[in-house]
Amino acid sequence: MTRIHFNEVATRDGFQIEPNFIPTDTKVALVDALSACGYAKIEVTSFTSPKAIPMLRDAEEVMGRIQRVPGVEYTVLVPNLRGAERALESKADELNLVMSTSETHNLANLRMPRESSFEALANVIRHVNGTTPINVSLSTCFGCPMEGDVPLAEVLRFADRFADLGVRGLTICDTTGMAHPAQVRAVCEALQARFPALQLTLHFHNTRGMGLANVLAAVQSGITRFDGSLGGLGGCPYAPGASGNISSEDAIHMLDAMGYDTGIDLVRLLAVARELPAIVGHEVPGQVAKAGRIQDLHPAITQ
Amino acid sequence: MTRIHFNEVATRDGFQIEPNFIPTDTKVALVDALSACGYAKIEVTSFTSPKAIPMLRDAEEVMGRIQRVPGVEYTVLVPNLRGAERALESKADELNLVMSTSETHNLANLRMPRESSFEALANVIRHVNGTTPINVSLSTCFGCPMEGDVPLAEVLRFADRFADLGVRGLTICDTTGMAHPAQVRAVCEALQARFPALQLTLHFHNTRGMGLANVLAAVQSGITRFDGSLGGLGGCPYAPGASGNISSEDAIHMLDAMGYDTGIDLVRLLAVARELPAIVGHEVPGQVAKAGRIQDLHPAITQ
Repeated sequence: MTRIHFNEVATRDGFQIEPNFIPTDTKVALVDALSACGYAKIEVTSFTSPKAIPMLRDAEEVMGRIQRVPGVEYTVLVPNLRGAERALESKADELNLVMSTSETHNLANLRMPRESSFEALANVIRHVNGTTPINVSLSTCFGCPMEGDVPLAEVLRFADRFADLGVRGLTICDTTGMAHPAQVRAVCEALQARFPALQLTLHFHNTRGMGLANVLAAVQSGITRFDGSLGGLGGCPYAPGASGNISSEDAIHMLDAMGYDTGIDLVRLLAVARELPAIVGHEVPGQVAKAGRIQDLHPAITQ
Repeated sequence: MTRIHFNEVATRDGFQIEPNFIPTDTKVALVDALSACGYAKIEVTSFTSPKAIPMLRDAEEVMGRIQRVPGVEYTVLVPNLRGAERALESKADELNLVMSTSETHNLANLRMPRESSFEALANVIRHVNGTTPINVSLSTCFGCPMEGDVPLAEVLRFADRFADLGVRGLTICDTTGMAHPAQVRAVCEALQARFPALQLTLHFHNTRGMGLANVLAAVQSGITRFDGSLGGLGGCPYAPGASGNISSEDAIHMLDAMGYDTGIDLVRLLAVARELPAIVGHEVPGQVAKAGRIQDLHPAITQ
């Protein structure tokens, strides 16, 4: 039975676009509840500037108060050297760096050219110097909402440069839900052939309804690591009303039904997912928390 | 380029659970707009009792007023002999009969044992006597929300009996979104091996978020015919708040992006889909109508 590793990103990628501050106690309790579900990894928070993302201004406190469960890795997003120092002080198990493979998207999102981002992240990697594993998330690998196509050669070019710097893993992100299954297959096969020793994680969005189809295409091509966001939390700024991240529990439910070993206690996870609308104050896109698992039957109707 | 045939079911399967009557003029205009998009087939309405489904009480009028576009088949749901007579009078291109492969679901939904349903439908088929093609939609082929597993042997047993009666096609329905991609692959391969001469259509629901992943698994196993509902219209009575039918435009968008020939003018179809919330008076689950196609880019953000 193939083991699939899930990285839960709701408390970072999901929470950061929520308009109303979520109390630190709630964040800590949610991470602790997720830890008990069997995740391989949890992206807890981001060591970004509190001014840039006020929602995550309590990064140190959250990292200090969560209960670390053996076997679960606690990763954090790190935008720069200052963030890396804070992350190391907080004893994060992994630092997750991010830049875009599209020049236009990098300029819009990180306010600098890709080369400047690369140099800044390379400095972080040299500074950390192997003391803590590094993952790099490459945005817009399946297309840029402004430029359109992002050639696979560009994705490979940045992947090569980070691999040369000794990162442990790369996350290949479909940042705005532009990937389709045939493309996913081609990209996953190319990356696995080129980087057999790297941890390759796929990060999909469900913006155009293809999220789980893309997960399927990725596992069919041999990928075993995925990002997911509880409830599908995290929207898409380019598509008001559309979904953002794939729902972790929906993806895990599908792979579990297909016979993959996700390591997750799905009943427990769904109980956590059902608390999410109360935490964020609105409905969330995840379907299985509403519909129940395939196995959750209904009483027979007799007429 | 593989040709995929879509059957649009929104005006029958989608509308029949809407609480507020949709005017006949609106139904006719919607079917005409859909005809112009390039569908292979449209399930226009149902010749059921007006008391059972008041929404579709105007079946004769709708069938009489729509503009028939050459190359588009206009099919109708037929529950019994009286319905078949009405459908033949209306000059439907196909009669679509329905029963469940689960005894409990058939009792709950059609208020009779499966054997009684089979006999009634067999009478319809004998009555029509080859003058009009017959399709049979088999419900709950991937699981019953009350019984749970529906053995493939049961699906094949009913499929065999209808094939022996000379039907042109079978629609294999995942009535409440219980199918997962590995199961879809197994069921599709078994059916295609057994019925190489039948038109096999797959009907998926997105109740647990797996709708498009199941479409992908089906096309990978060689299936080329699908039901879809514009906007994902049509809910699931067992899962309030969850999605129902797969969204036609989302499925067509995915297959189109992958390089399949769906025959559909997607830009035109999305324009029709965007009218749907105003027609039914509520938001609908379809994503691509909100997010736009992969190709629909956004202006670059400069800072």
